[in-house]
Amino acid sequence: MSDLPVTPLLDIVANPADLRKLKPAQLRQLADELRAETISAVGTTGGHLGSGLGVVELTTAIHYVFNTPEDRLIFDVGHQCYPHKILTGRRDRIRTLRTGGGLSGFTKRSESEYDPFGAAHSSTSISAALGFAIANKLNDKPGKAIAVIGDGAMSAGMAYEAMNNAEQAGNRLVVILNDNDMSIAPPVGGLSAYLARIVSSRPFLGLRDLAKRVARKLPRPLHDAARKTDEFARGMAMGGTLFEELGFYYVGPVDGHNLDQLIPVLENVRDAEQGPILVHVVTQKGKGYAPAEAAADKYHGVQKFDVITGTQDKAPPGPPSYQNVFGETLAKLADTDTRICAITAAMPSGTGVDKFAARHPDRAFDVGIAEQHAVTFAAGLAAQGMRPFCAIYSTFLQRAYDQVVHDVAIQNLPVRFAIDRAGLVGADGATHAGSFDVTYLATLPNFVVMAPADEAELVHMTYTCVCHDDGPIAVRYPRGSGTGVALPETPERLEIGKGRVVRQGKKVVILSLGTRLEEALKAADQLDAKGLSTTVADLRFAKPLDEALIRKLLTTHEVAVTIEEGAIGGLGAHVLTLASDTGLIDAGLKLRTMRLPDIFQDQDKPEKQYAEAGLDADAIVETVLKALRHNSATVIEGARA
Amino acid sequence: MSDLPVTPLLDIVANPADLRKLKPAQLRQLADELRAETISAVGTTGGHLGSGLGVVELTTAIHYVFNTPEDRLIFDVGHQCYPHKILTGRRDRIRTLRTGGGLSGFTKRSESEYDPFGAAHSSTSISAALGFAIANKLNDKPGKAIAVIGDGAMSAGMAYEAMNNAEQAGNRLVVILNDNDMSIAPPVGGLSAYLARIVSSRPFLGLRDLAKRVARKLPRPLHDAARKTDEFARGMAMGGTLFEELGFYYVGPVDGHNLDQLIPVLENVRDAEQGPILVHVVTQKGKGYAPAEAAADKYHGVQKFDVITGTQDKAPPGPPSYQNVFGETLAKLADTDTRICAITAAMPSGTGVDKFAARHPDRAFDVGIAEQHAVTFAAGLAAQGMRPFCAIYSTFLQRAYDQVVHDVAIQNLPVRFAIDRAGLVGADGATHAGSFDVTYLATLPNFVVMAPADEAELVHMTYTCVCHDDGPIAVRYPRGSGTGVALPETPERLEIGKGRVVRQGKKVVILSLGTRLEEALKAADQLDAKGLSTTVADLRFAKPLDEALIRKLLTTHEVAVTIEEGAIGGLGAHVLTLASDTGLIDAGLKLRTMRLPDIFQDQDKPEKQYAEAGLDADAIVETVLKALRHNSATVIEGARA
Repeated sequence: MSDLPVTPLLDIVANPADLRKLKPAQLRQLADELRAETISAVGTTGGHLGSGLGVVELTTAIHYVFNTPEDRLIFDVGHQCYPHKILTGRRDRIRTLRTGGGLSGFTKRSESEYDPFGAAHSSTSISAALGFAIANKLNDKPGKAIAVIGDGAMSAGMAYEAMNNAEQAGNRLVVILNDNDMSIAPPVGGLSAYLARIVSSRPFLGLRDLAKRVARKLPRPLHDAARKTDEFARGMAMGGTLFEELGFYYVGPVDGHNLDQLIPVLENVRDAEQGPILVHVVTQKGKGYAPAEAAADKYHGVQKFDVITGTQDKAPPGPPSYQNVFGETLAKLADTDTRICAITAAMPSGTGVDKFAARHPDRAFDVGIAEQHAVTFAAGLAAQGMRPFCAIYSTFLQRAYDQVVHDVAIQNLPVRFAIDRAGLVGADGATHAGSFDVTYLATLPNFVVMAPADEAELVHMTYTCVCHDDGPIAVRYPRGSGTGVALPETPERLEIGKGRVVRQGKKVVILSLGTRLEEALKAADQLDAKGLSTTVADLRFAKPLDEALIRKLLTTHEVAVTIEEGAIGGLGAHVLTLASDTGLIDAGLKLRTMRLPDIFQDQDKPEKQYAEAGLDADAIVETVLKALRHNSATVIEGARA
Repeated sequence: MSDLPVTPLLDIVANPADLRKLKPAQLRQLADELRAETISAVGTTGGHLGSGLGVVELTTAIHYVFNTPEDRLIFDVGHQCYPHKILTGRRDRIRTLRTGGGLSGFTKRSESEYDPFGAAHSSTSISAALGFAIANKLNDKPGKAIAVIGDGAMSAGMAYEAMNNAEQAGNRLVVILNDNDMSIAPPVGGLSAYLARIVSSRPFLGLRDLAKRVARKLPRPLHDAARKTDEFARGMAMGGTLFEELGFYYVGPVDGHNLDQLIPVLENVRDAEQGPILVHVVTQKGKGYAPAEAAADKYHGVQKFDVITGTQDKAPPGPPSYQNVFGETLAKLADTDTRICAITAAMPSGTGVDKFAARHPDRAFDVGIAEQHAVTFAAGLAAQGMRPFCAIYSTFLQRAYDQVVHDVAIQNLPVRFAIDRAGLVGADGATHAGSFDVTYLATLPNFVVMAPADEAELVHMTYTCVCHDDGPIAVRYPRGSGTGVALPETPERLEIGKGRVVRQGKKVVILSLGTRLEEALKAADQLDAKGLSTTVADLRFAKPLDEALIRKLLTTHEVAVTIEEGAIGGLGAHVLTLASDTGLIDAGLKLRTMRLPDIFQDQDKPEKQYAEAGLDADAIVETVLKALRHNSATVIEGARA
């Protein structure tokens, strides 16, 4: 661990009230100390660094100018909130970030009154801020709402929907556009190009012109008629920015690292009698830490690192990640199949689409944070004969659920879904867990839903997706490294809806979907050692189920357990429904379904999360033993009573 | 039925190729005949009228100018497509619109090659068009893609996401903004105000200035350097429209009923060598039919009507609709509870929020077609102490699934969801069915999911939602009229997770969720008549289940059947999972789950749809009898073989 930085000013700031006792001239030093503390903390824990460094001054200035927590500060995404956490009473725990029992890597309501709205997915802040602002307005209570949103997050549809509805909040709503020309990957799209044009064409708002310009932008109350004229003029000029056209007062651009400008601008915005106001602040991701500034991704998410050199801990060498196995397999297949396309929503490296893009740049599409568009765009490609893959994290595919249903499933279009980060995800916690995809996809007619047990299976399933032109097909797989199995030279096309028996036993059967197979096999060994001969099947498909195989296994074993990395309504529910539909349950069936529990699990190491969830080998053994011991007559008598 | 209109020109136009043989001077008459035929057809069938009448000239002009179906024409929402269907080979079936076995009320791929992409939910057209355009570009094939999208649909996030990604399509993409200052309800929001300002400040593009203006807007190819300068200038001017700022060439506004202007403008757009182009066409909803023009909703959706007078068939007097029972109940409750708010996404009357808005205008929010924003806005209101109700149709709530998970469920915020149009919906067909909500909501931790058996229960459940401050709660109910039961004077607060026994029997038990209760009771009578004494329970809650009641009923009856108006993964799956978790299934359980089938069902009368789905009284009886006859030993032997 690095030495702790020397932070005399920060040491006396326990919360924003303390901060507001400082003189403006002290803020530069405070910001420097805050930056040093942030770097030191993330050096210890790993996590999101570049985003936080970019908003050190902005965070300081907002808490200095606004009356938090009564004024509600909402960070979009929330991964830039580490400096905010340090300033709001959580400095003592800042080196527990993203660890089990520690601070969340995002804002979180249960952690602090200074986190009025949790985040992690992008582009929610303006909508939430509007809710706070309008509630205060209805109750005639003081308190503004301040949303801090990046330019990348601004490309998502819901940010636009919120902007379109913002006018009713008046001066209670302040949107701070944190324009660092960067989300996780370089920005894409028309909005990004537009913001770049503004910044390159207008000087930063300086001290000298601040008074007159801001005053002109934010007039004092006018008579009604005059106000109407003003509002008409503000848009009518057609010389306004896109934000003015949607009803905002636009202020900016402002240098987001210059506190001498930031503070007076924010004070003006705070005191303005009209609104809503959008402040366009230009920042640099990774600001003030040379290794981050120099890195292509600006140290977006990092491992623990040495603060002096910036050298990150290397992950120990090991099996390739699922995302890269997917990306490389698809890239190879696309060498000979010109119909294959790959689409990512601002996650080229996280999804492995970067591997595909390197070989097939014309058929790779990064649409920005725009999952809805990604899916329907893919549907259009499919309808015109292409073989599109939407590579989207499980949790983010929730953003496009209606497009999955309405544009893909109902039309039975062969869009391929490569769903990464399925199941529990570790340090990112509940907001990023991919718990519901099997449930929400397998309920849809026309859909095929697969999950590989290891990375070799993912190769086969990727190829199976390519070949499947009959309708939508999804393959969902976890975050992180594979199991280390050899990758096949030649991918196989799997038969749709056919599972495989991996281990043959007699008394117990474990029906596994996905990468719990490893734990299932461990459990089988333990059960065998107890004299309970155990079969393990890898079902491969949640939909369609391998009915013949399941019926055979259920009827030839004394106890059956399903296991999956997903919540209720998925594999287990479908197997039970099959057993019910076919009447297999009539004669008695010791069948148990192991699934994610009915809680949102906080961050921890994945293996600990799965142990907490009751989805590891020990839990399987226990479930089997309990089922065997179970005396149904007693239960039934109890229930009847 | 009214007399058929006289349509000599239309009679010789079997398809767009025929249309393109006409002289421009004949198009006015053709459009008039097309309008008359549309009015006559909808007079016979009922359906969407105003939207189609608004685009008669536009539809004619597009097919005349563009080379459909090679050029892909995609109507957003699709309810304005009746004139298009008449022109594209479906005139012979136009009087079967929205009926069982007849034409869909929306565009549909399986109906015609002229419908390259089906629709019904709004705002998908630009994304889909981009898919077609890019596929053609990649394959170096001819064919442009033309999206026709209303100003209301333009307020949804996904339209913005698509615009933000449009530039790569170049001149292969044409977006026609059909600005009728109206979606279903009057428009809301910043974009709408902005469009109104454009239209009121700029003259229509006339014949005289067309050549020079359009030519200037759409320059011939330039050298690369010059093109870069041009592209820079186009946005740099800051005098551009919002669409130009996002990367489009903007052309307009154009009078959408004047074919003499529409045709040359579209010809210019077709031949432009740069793009993408957005053509801003101003139309009048209901145009050319006096009763529609005069009506507040412009005959958006109508019953059969008399073409001469415009008088619509009145629905026979009957029980109130669920939507109005909800809206009126909530309005009353809000008289004494100032924390109640109601939010609708452009469906004030469809959701009953209009009843609430009439009494509490300051606490009613119509956010436009923006379900994502609606939900997170509600989460913000809840976090600041309000009691918000999101009133959204089941199928449209899919648009906000991630917001439901991420902003509401994970944070356990007490947002109330009033989910209308749950289950099958009749004439609107598969795209509007609310089949998946119980599955996708009940899988979420923290959620309470209810369904009333009748409108009196809805009153109680609405009040139960008001009182439930512990976390998210949803009540889902069908389209249409209640059962006619008396409405309670005083709403009751139901105990969370408690069902009720409606009818006590001995041998068979039917576990019902929602309005299938009526059919369950009919089935019980039939079963009783056969000597099978039948209990019927109304479970009220899909989550949390009434475990004690269900266990008791399952263990005291010989056969159990669950029934719900939803797809797999819902009530039935949860009951089976409970039976498995508790070991009740070990001793044998004749339990069957009746649910929507694994297909997307086409439009028909709801009772016919439910019969097709196998969810009526007869089907319940049959399921029970089959289960009783079922010999599990045989099945198991068969499965083992």
